[in-house]
Amino acid sequence: MSYDFDVIVLGGGPGGYTAAIRAARLGLKTAVIEADSLGGTCLNRGCIPTKAILASAHTYHEMKKSHEFGVDSEKVSFNLEKIMKRKDDIVLKLREGIAQLFKANKITLINGFGRLDSSRGVVCGEKTYTYKKLILATGSRPLNLPLMPPNSQYMINSDQALKLNKLPKRLLVIGGGVIGAEMANFFAFLGVSVTIVELMPQLLPNEDASLAKRLASIFKKYGITVKTGKKVSEIKEDRQAGCVNVRFEGESEQSSFDMVLQAVGRSRVISDIGLENASVKTDGKKIIVNEYFQTSNPDIFAVGDCASDIMLAHLASHQALAAAYNASCEDASAMRKLHAVVPSCIYTIPEAASCGLTPDKAKKAGLELVSGKFMFAMLGRALCMQANEGFVEIFADRDTKKITGANILGPSATELISCVQAAIASGLTAQEFGEKMIFAHPTLSEALGEAFSDISKEAIHIPPALR
Amino acid sequence: MSYDFDVIVLGGGPGGYTAAIRAARLGLKTAVIEADSLGGTCLNRGCIPTKAILASAHTYHEMKKSHEFGVDSEKVSFNLEKIMKRKDDIVLKLREGIAQLFKANKITLINGFGRLDSSRGVVCGEKTYTYKKLILATGSRPLNLPLMPPNSQYMINSDQALKLNKLPKRLLVIGGGVIGAEMANFFAFLGVSVTIVELMPQLLPNEDASLAKRLASIFKKYGITVKTGKKVSEIKEDRQAGCVNVRFEGESEQSSFDMVLQAVGRSRVISDIGLENASVKTDGKKIIVNEYFQTSNPDIFAVGDCASDIMLAHLASHQALAAAYNASCEDASAMRKLHAVVPSCIYTIPEAASCGLTPDKAKKAGLELVSGKFMFAMLGRALCMQANEGFVEIFADRDTKKITGANILGPSATELISCVQAAIASGLTAQEFGEKMIFAHPTLSEALGEAFSDISKEAIHIPPALR
Repeated sequence: MSYDFDVIVLGGGPGGYTAAIRAARLGLKTAVIEADSLGGTCLNRGCIPTKAILASAHTYHEMKKSHEFGVDSEKVSFNLEKIMKRKDDIVLKLREGIAQLFKANKITLINGFGRLDSSRGVVCGEKTYTYKKLILATGSRPLNLPLMPPNSQYMINSDQALKLNKLPKRLLVIGGGVIGAEMANFFAFLGVSVTIVELMPQLLPNEDASLAKRLASIFKKYGITVKTGKKVSEIKEDRQAGCVNVRFEGESEQSSFDMVLQAVGRSRVISDIGLENASVKTDGKKIIVNEYFQTSNPDIFAVGDCASDIMLAHLASHQALAAAYNASCEDASAMRKLHAVVPSCIYTIPEAASCGLTPDKAKKAGLELVSGKFMFAMLGRALCMQANEGFVEIFADRDTKKITGANILGPSATELISCVQAAIASGLTAQEFGEKMIFAHPTLSEALGEAFSDISKEAIHIPPALR
Repeated sequence: MSYDFDVIVLGGGPGGYTAAIRAARLGLKTAVIEADSLGGTCLNRGCIPTKAILASAHTYHEMKKSHEFGVDSEKVSFNLEKIMKRKDDIVLKLREGIAQLFKANKITLINGFGRLDSSRGVVCGEKTYTYKKLILATGSRPLNLPLMPPNSQYMINSDQALKLNKLPKRLLVIGGGVIGAEMANFFAFLGVSVTIVELMPQLLPNEDASLAKRLASIFKKYGITVKTGKKVSEIKEDRQAGCVNVRFEGESEQSSFDMVLQAVGRSRVISDIGLENASVKTDGKKIIVNEYFQTSNPDIFAVGDCASDIMLAHLASHQALAAAYNASCEDASAMRKLHAVVPSCIYTIPEAASCGLTPDKAKKAGLELVSGKFMFAMLGRALCMQANEGFVEIFADRDTKKITGANILGPSATELISCVQAAIASGLTAQEFGEKMIFAHPTLSEALGEAFSDISKEAIHIPPALR
C-alpha cells in the first residue's frame, strides 16, 4: 500500500517542526499540517516574543540606573509600539528561518486545520492526506477562566498581552506561574502598577519555595504586589469608571484595575482533531503515550504540550527528535527513549532556573539530599555587572554524593543551569566533578564552582562560620 | 623542631590567598606575606578592575543604540572619574572580603616584602619567620619594553591604564593579546581612536585563528585599527606637539598618538626573593615545579604566574588548592595533581572563550578533530538580546568522538565555555552527551546543543546544504 507521506506531522510548533526536520533527514517523505503560523505558540505567542519584549523592558530598567556604571543620560523613555514592532520582526525572522529549513529539507507544508478521519488519513480543507506514520504535536492554548463576560475589553490573556498598543495604569495578573511572573516583570519595568494573585501558597508554584520566595521579595522591591494562597472572589466591570473592581478572598476592601491578565495555565489541543477516528486515547487532559512517545495507535506518536505533563518547548523538541526517529524504525526494539533532565527557566530579572531533583521534589519522593550554596553578592563578576542578587544552590544524593539538581536565581541563571545538567549527565559525584572543573575567573559560573565545593564544605569564599 | 607557621604563603593573589585558606581549613597554622594589597594583580590591577570598567564602557555603548530595543534617551554621556571610582569600590569590597576570610580562617597576614633567607626562614622587614612548608605565589608584573625613556608621560602599561583620569584622543596599544584586546575595546567604546599593533600574525596570538580573525573584523567595525604581523620600528616623543610619532615596520608614513599603552606580556616575580637561599631552581623565566607543584626543594611549593606557562587567575587558584593539600600531606604518595582543562576567556564585546584541544593546537600535536558549529545569528535568544554576532564551534576526536574542546565567540561566551568543560570532564562522546542534554529554550546555550549535534551533522537548525 502506498501513502501520500511516510510521515505527517500535525502541528508546526517546536515539537512539530523539529519532528518533521528530523524525519526528513532520516529520508522520510514528510509533511506538516499547520493551521496557524510555523513555530507554534513558542515562537509566535510564547517563549520568543516574551523574551523579546522583556529584553526591551530590561534595557529601559537598566538605563534608568545607568549612573551606577558612571554613565548618564537624560529623558529615558520607551515606545511600546517600537517594542512590539521589534518583537514582531524577531518572530518573523525566526519564522522565515523555519520555512527555509522546511524547503531545504524538502518538507511539504500544508496550511489548514488537520483532523484525523481514520487511522491512515488526515483531512485538511477538502483534501485527505494518507500517512504511514503520524506525529501529533498540536500543542496548547491559554486557559480562560469564566470570570468575566467573554470578550470583555478589560480581560486579556498572554496572547493578547503581546499585542497591546497601550499600557494599563493598574494591572492585575491572575496566576503567578512562569507566564504570570514574566508578564508581571515586563509591565512593572514599564511603570505599570502590577498586582499578582496566585491560588497556591507561593509565586512560581512549580519551583522550590526557596527560589520562589526570594523572587517574590525582589518583585516587591520592584513595586509588584504579590498575593499568594489567595483567589479572586469577585470581579466586576465598571464601564462608567472604565475599570474592573476585584475582591480578593479574605479581603474586605475592593481593588480597582484597568486591566486583568489571565495567566492561569494552558489547555491542550486534543479535542476536535479526530483522535477517536484513529483509536488514539487521551486521559481527558492529554494524549496518552508510552516511553517511546507512541500513542494507543502504534503508528501514531505524540509529542509536546498535547502529550506531556510538562509544557516546555525544549522538552517538546527533544521528544520530537526521539519520536521522529522511532517513527522511522522498522524494528520496534530499536526505538529510543529520552534520558535527560528537563531544565525549567523563568526569564524574570533576575532569571531563575532549576533542574533535576531539588529539596521540595526530593521530599515528596522521600529522598534525602545534601546541598551547597553560593551567593552572587560575593562574586566579582556579578559585582562588575551590577547584578549581584540571588544564589546558586546545587544538590547531591546524601548517600552516593552524585549531583541531582540545582536551583539558581540570578544573572544568566538560564544559561548556568546547562552546566549543572552536564554535571548530572556526567554521573560524577560533586567532588569528582569539582576536581575536573576549573571555572574561569571572573565569571558567574564560578558561583557554580563554589556551590559544588560547598557540598563538601570546601568552598574557598565562604567563611567557616557561615557553613 | 618547631616553626612559627606550618605553612607560609609568599604572595596574597588568587594563588596565594586560595592556598592559605585551603591550608588553614586543613588545620595548618598559616601566614601570608604580601607586599602590596590582598588579591594580587588579578583583583587590584587585572581581571576584576578591567571587567568593571569594561562593564561601564559596554553600558555606554549599548545605551547609544538602545533605540534598537524601542528605548530612547538623550545626551548619553560617561564620566571617567565615576567609572574609575566604581571600579575602585568593587575592588575594595572584594579585597575586604578576602581580609574577612583571612580572619575567619585565622590566617596571619604579614604586610611587607618577603625574601627567603634559608630553607626554613622568610625575612620580612626586621623579622624572620620560620615555616615547615612554604608556598610561593609571587605572581607577575607588566613587562615594559625599552621603547621610550622610562617614566615617559606618553607611555602607560595596564596598571596605569586603570588609573587614568583623562582619555587620550588617539591611543596606540602595543600588543594584541588578551590585555591589549580588552583595553582596546574599552577605550574604543569610550570614543578613543584606537590602533592595535601585534607582532604575531593575528590578534589574540594564543587563540585559534578562526576566533581571532572574527574578533579582529568586529574590532574594525568599532573603528579600531588592527595591525598584525608588524612591529613598531620607531617611536619618538614630540613634546612640543604633545604627542608620540610612531613608525610601523614596512610603512613609510608616521602615525601620531597621544598615548601608548604597552600590553606586551608579563614577567614573573622570581628575582630578589631569595630563591637561591633555599635551593629553589628556576628555568630563568619561571620557578620549576613538578606535577604536584613542588619545587626543587620538596618543602617548598609554587603556584600561579611565578611557576606556570599559562598566567591565569583561575589556574593559579586551582593549583593552589592542590599545592596546599600537598603541603599538608605527611605521605608524599597521597599528593594530588590537577586533572582539568583550563579555559581561556577574553572579555571583549562579544566575549571570546576557548578550552581544550582545538584545531590549531591539534595540528601542532598531529591530531585530527571533527567539529560542529552554530552561528548565534540563527538563535532566538541571541536575537532577543540584540547580540547575535559570533559562533560556537565544538571539537571532538576524529576516532573516539569524545569531546576535546571548543572555540566560542559571542554573548556570554565566558559562561557557556563551562558547559563544554563539563562535557569534556564527563568523558562522553558528542553523541552520548547530546542525548543526555536538553538545552533550555530560549537560551544562548542552545547554540552549544546545535554545535554538539552538528558534529554528527544532525543539528536541526542548520540547512543540509550548509553542513
